[in-house]
Amino acid sequence: MKAVVLHAPHNLMIEDRPIPMPGEGDVLVRIHRGGICGSDMHYYHHGGFGTVRIKSPMVPGHELSGIVERLGAGVSSIAVGTAVAVNPSLACGTCSFCVKGMSRHCSDMRFMGSAMRTPHIDGGFREYVVVRATQAVPVGEMAGLEEAACAEPLAVCLHAVSQAPDLRGKRVLVTGFGPIGALTFLAARHAGADAISATDIADMPLELAKKLGAEAAWNVSAADVMEEEFRDRGQFDVVFECSGSPAAMRLAIGVTKPSGTIVQVGLLPDEIKAAFNPMITKEITFRGTFRFDSEFDLAVQLISDRTIDVRPIISRTFPFERADDAFAFARDRQQAIKVMLEFA
Amino acid sequence: MKAVVLHAPHNLMIEDRPIPMPGEGDVLVRIHRGGICGSDMHYYHHGGFGTVRIKSPMVPGHELSGIVERLGAGVSSIAVGTAVAVNPSLACGTCSFCVKGMSRHCSDMRFMGSAMRTPHIDGGFREYVVVRATQAVPVGEMAGLEEAACAEPLAVCLHAVSQAPDLRGKRVLVTGFGPIGALTFLAARHAGADAISATDIADMPLELAKKLGAEAAWNVSAADVMEEEFRDRGQFDVVFECSGSPAAMRLAIGVTKPSGTIVQVGLLPDEIKAAFNPMITKEITFRGTFRFDSEFDLAVQLISDRTIDVRPIISRTFPFERADDAFAFARDRQQAIKVMLEFA
Amino acid sequence: MKAVVLHAPHNLMIEDRPIPMPGEGDVLVRIHRGGICGSDMHYYHHGGFGTVRIKSPMVPGHELSGIVERLGAGVSSIAVGTAVAVNPSLACGTCSFCVKGMSRHCSDMRFMGSAMRTPHIDGGFREYVVVRATQAVPVGEMAGLEEAACAEPLAVCLHAVSQAPDLRGKRVLVTGFGPIGALTFLAARHAGADAISATDIADMPLELAKKLGAEAAWNVSAADVMEEEFRDRGQFDVVFECSGSPAAMRLAIGVTKPSGTIVQVGLLPDEIKAAFNPMITKEITFRGTFRFDSEFDLAVQLISDRTIDVRPIISRTFPFERADDAFAFARDRQQAIKVMLEFA
Amino acid sequence: MKAVVLHAPHNLMIEDRPIPMPGEGDVLVRIHRGGICGSDMHYYHHGGFGTVRIKSPMVPGHELSGIVERLGAGVSSIAVGTAVAVNPSLACGTCSFCVKGMSRHCSDMRFMGSAMRTPHIDGGFREYVVVRATQAVPVGEMAGLEEAACAEPLAVCLHAVSQAPDLRGKRVLVTGFGPIGALTFLAARHAGADAISATDIADMPLELAKKLGAEAAWNVSAADVMEEEFRDRGQFDVVFECSGSPAAMRLAIGVTKPSGTIVQVGLLPDEIKAAFNPMITKEITFRGTFRFDSEFDLAVQLISDRTIDVRPIISRTFPFERADDAFAFARDRQQAIKVMLEFA
Repeated sequence: MKAVVLHAPHNLMIEDRPIPMPGEGDVLVRIHRGGICGSDMHYYHHGGFGTVRIKSPMVPGHELSGIVERLGAGVSSIAVGTAVAVNPSLACGTCSFCVKGMSRHCSDMRFMGSAMRTPHIDGGFREYVVVRATQAVPVGEMAGLEEAACAEPLAVCLHAVSQAPDLRGKRVLVTGFGPIGALTFLAARHAGADAISATDIADMPLELAKKLGAEAAWNVSAADVMEEEFRDRGQFDVVFECSGSPAAMRLAIGVTKPSGTIVQVGLLPDEIKAAFNPMITKEITFRGTFRFDSEFDLAVQLISDRTIDVRPIISRTFPFERADDAFAFARDRQQAIKVMLEFA
Repeated sequence: MKAVVLHAPHNLMIEDRPIPMPGEGDVLVRIHRGGICGSDMHYYHHGGFGTVRIKSPMVPGHELSGIVERLGAGVSSIAVGTAVAVNPSLACGTCSFCVKGMSRHCSDMRFMGSAMRTPHIDGGFREYVVVRATQAVPVGEMAGLEEAACAEPLAVCLHAVSQAPDLRGKRVLVTGFGPIGALTFLAARHAGADAISATDIADMPLELAKKLGAEAAWNVSAADVMEEEFRDRGQFDVVFECSGSPAAMRLAIGVTKPSGTIVQVGLLPDEIKAAFNPMITKEITFRGTFRFDSEFDLAVQLISDRTIDVRPIISRTFPFERADDAFAFARDRQQAIKVMLEFA
Repeated sequence: MKAVVLHAPHNLMIEDRPIPMPGEGDVLVRIHRGGICGSDMHYYHHGGFGTVRIKSPMVPGHELSGIVERLGAGVSSIAVGTAVAVNPSLACGTCSFCVKGMSRHCSDMRFMGSAMRTPHIDGGFREYVVVRATQAVPVGEMAGLEEAACAEPLAVCLHAVSQAPDLRGKRVLVTGFGPIGALTFLAARHAGADAISATDIADMPLELAKKLGAEAAWNVSAADVMEEEFRDRGQFDVVFECSGSPAAMRLAIGVTKPSGTIVQVGLLPDEIKAAFNPMITKEITFRGTFRFDSEFDLAVQLISDRTIDVRPIISRTFPFERADDAFAFARDRQQAIKVMLEFA
Repeated sequence: MKAVVLHAPHNLMIEDRPIPMPGEGDVLVRIHRGGICGSDMHYYHHGGFGTVRIKSPMVPGHELSGIVERLGAGVSSIAVGTAVAVNPSLACGTCSFCVKGMSRHCSDMRFMGSAMRTPHIDGGFREYVVVRATQAVPVGEMAGLEEAACAEPLAVCLHAVSQAPDLRGKRVLVTGFGPIGALTFLAARHAGADAISATDIADMPLELAKKLGAEAAWNVSAADVMEEEFRDRGQFDVVFECSGSPAAMRLAIGVTKPSGTIVQVGLLPDEIKAAFNPMITKEITFRGTFRFDSEFDLAVQLISDRTIDVRPIISRTFPFERADDAFAFARDRQQAIKVMLEFA
């Protein structure tokens, strides 16, 4: 089979690999679509982020969908031919976190396409993967395999929403309207948020926000465009910070109401500088959120019947052989929200 | 009557002022004790903090106890001669925050001894104050007026504890063991915390922590003394950061367990620099907390019957005429936790 | 003006009354629509419920919409001609509950069209009412005054949903699919519930449930139709009991999952007999819910832009002169969900 | 070894049984003390409760302490000679509840001394038991093995307290002051409850309540003794109903404040009759609670260092050979709170 292998920044090769064999409890999945995530972008363009660096060739990719092609011994919960989204997260089940039901903090987590541990865990930008049968989650008929590949980032966003208080009737801001911002927007609306606004520093994502029904959409590369939102110590009940930019975090602190909540979705730069006292005098809750838990199954379910329709965020799909072009295109925020690779 | 009036940093005068008259719904309180708070210290030594500066002479002091001496018209809820703790916080009752039951965010708050608004609101370091009858909270007989003057800082700490999840059986750390740290320690124990540890950069407060039953007490002016507590991504369920030091905040991020909570009690420097990503990947909840709400009455009640015994934190009481000495002494963290002024 | 006055069960008169004058802070509203509520039905058919009985002639009706026709002195927050939903609930603002922000438990509550206090408070089944300006909540243009008259019962259901845990992705059952059941269904979907099923003892409401997208709809007048839902000690995360029937409550106890929640929306018979031990061994949370709070404004907002479309539940509108016919029709559960009176 | 075997109501035999051998992962514990629980009383006096009936001879007893005497293969976490409390609860770890971290709802639960499943699981009223090593929880040195045998009922009460909202500063009532009521009292105080009162229908338990510091203690066998507590629709924030009596449940509904909580600790009669509407109009939360979860370890820890001192509730200890006398004595509520059997 063919695999997309990253050797170093901008050094990506299409290589031949043997098709893996499913062991007991495993399934073999023929990959159809793989979405390019922000972390894939960091590996490709910078070799990693923070202390997480590619030390040996790795197959990236963890937003995956495909068809079950073969069952390992003892698997009866799923049939050959089933369309599935692949959960890239595999907790050990036995560490001190897992036994307490906190498997997302698993100290022996195996996450596909991640250089966090050495040797790295290969991801799914290849024609076939073997995963535990429980990682292959059946997708309903209405949505296709392209939409299904959005289950992983949607799970991240559903988890982020679960870290906020009840959103019904609340005024919400999403800062940074890339794929994670856009899916957080959809997840917040699904949770009953009343009016959701967005910020970005590019115009195209903000137009998408408006198309999706945003109350307001500000291009914050200009100064002072949101002055009105600082009124009475802040106008938003909940801010989802999805840009990872310190400027956006400072903005969030300013426009969040007293006793409001800021949910930080995804990482910030390694070290940041900020005035925290307004967060303290306003008694804001700041909550970090990272990856997901049981929300993966929920994401598949919501995508399957288009309760959450992810089609507007899929910008373009490239054949996997053109992965370099796809990574380049994904970087252009005037054109790209979510970019996909096609494997079948 | 005599009043302690602050004109500028280290420029404090004992002046004569007329005894104020209680209006309708007010009471006149003969002040007995006034505790020196960290913000009083900032006014005295630095003229303020951040953008809050003394612009005209002000009477500091907001940790107060005394005896009701005269009733304004229409007051029947309290009798002359009652020993009281004075709640220095007076919300407007009509702003958008007050009507939603969020009076601690009142946009027209009148807080005694604060330079946050101009003209400043005089505090209670004087022989008499007039307050609304509801601000004078009766103190039981067991505890005296010295202990009662600790109601306000204890209210701050009870409020901080209310911002943390259920502490029963939890492992808790208090960073910074001045008066707020020590009272947070007592408030956390009252809430059922299992084992509470403390850090400081002076030895005397840490000895007090041990006397109060701290599991461990670390002098973090030395390097790497808490290495063991970083194990498995952190060993504390909840950290109450009471020092206002960026170093302590960084420590807190390191030693808090995944899905744990950091409660920031009181302000930090205006701008701080920190690595926030561990807070995100560990999904820590960071909650700012400032002042208090209904906790003032609870504080008086817990002090009154010594459910919380505040005597060990009162280091020394000076006659108010020696206020300068008291402010100097309060700065010496090898001798002083809480320092009091005596007015009667 | 004309008013619908109830003198005794089935003794309803259309009478002349003087048009009331708005005092300071009041507005005069020309009523357009008034929905018939279950409690109106109890007054009309039985003279009341439990110990609440009509002791003197009373105008019923508390689900009201209309147009502001005159302003009392000092009212500047709303203009003459504004289309409004009328909040029938007026708390005193000064009792021990109101000052704690628990105004829905007000011990001096004035609720329109209720015989709970003597003299009774007249309701709004008449051509004009005077209410406080804050009780007249502007309705957007998209929805008309018929839909706006559903704001009150929708507020009840939004409040009920707020008493349940996060519904996103949850399996929910609504027992009893009258107006409250149907609006609870819509409110639960708005809160992100995944699959919502319904029970009733009449077929027409169940057909409506299916039209609204119910996962399943059972006619529980037949025995054992829900056997599958008792599997593994219960299959629903949350049950909203909207029928007030002890049989439905017993069903709810059986089909709720361990650690699940039952929300009782509205009253039960005065005394009921039930086996509670399954509720204890399964550690179910049972929460009573009654009326609403800030949810009235949210209801108006959700109806205004049809985020929640209430049109399918409005069965028929009668001119108010035919109130007797309307009350008779409303009793026929094969034809009626919500029945309205038209006043203008 | 000797074992206390129950054949039928009041038919209890001291029989010889072989000493069991610890398998892999097990430990052999020499039992020292076994507390008599309410369910043991039901088996002894009535043959069971509800549908749970003794169908074949069973060793009762699940409140146990002892010394580890032998280790099974592979056990290294505990040493021979360790004093332990024995957790009688063993969840399967693989059912749908266990994998979701809800092991207390395990559908294949093995609970010692329970006739809930057939064949029954023998309890610990015998000289030796074999349990999984994780069920043997080390006890500190300060408290002895008699106190340690109270860990199981204390765990039940700590779990009940965890089902209530924050108790700090709250007014609490415990109805029924047997062993569970008394331990709930201590657990509620540990959680910071301000003033805790008690009811019972016998005088001795109420005297104990006063000795432990109860605010008030009412003998509710007399009529109308608590009239004052019904004021303003109820005076208690939280009621722990520990008697299992329908009269106490009705009392609880009457004296709980609006928006308050009733926690039902332990079972009620199979079917009860009650007026639920006050629970609905007051929007009370009623929560069933049954057994415990991680609270067992917390109970051992709190007993070990006497943070919770259980000595006042231990009324009398009988040699196990006099088990019949112990069961008779335990029934006399004027003499007995907790009664123990001595095995070593």
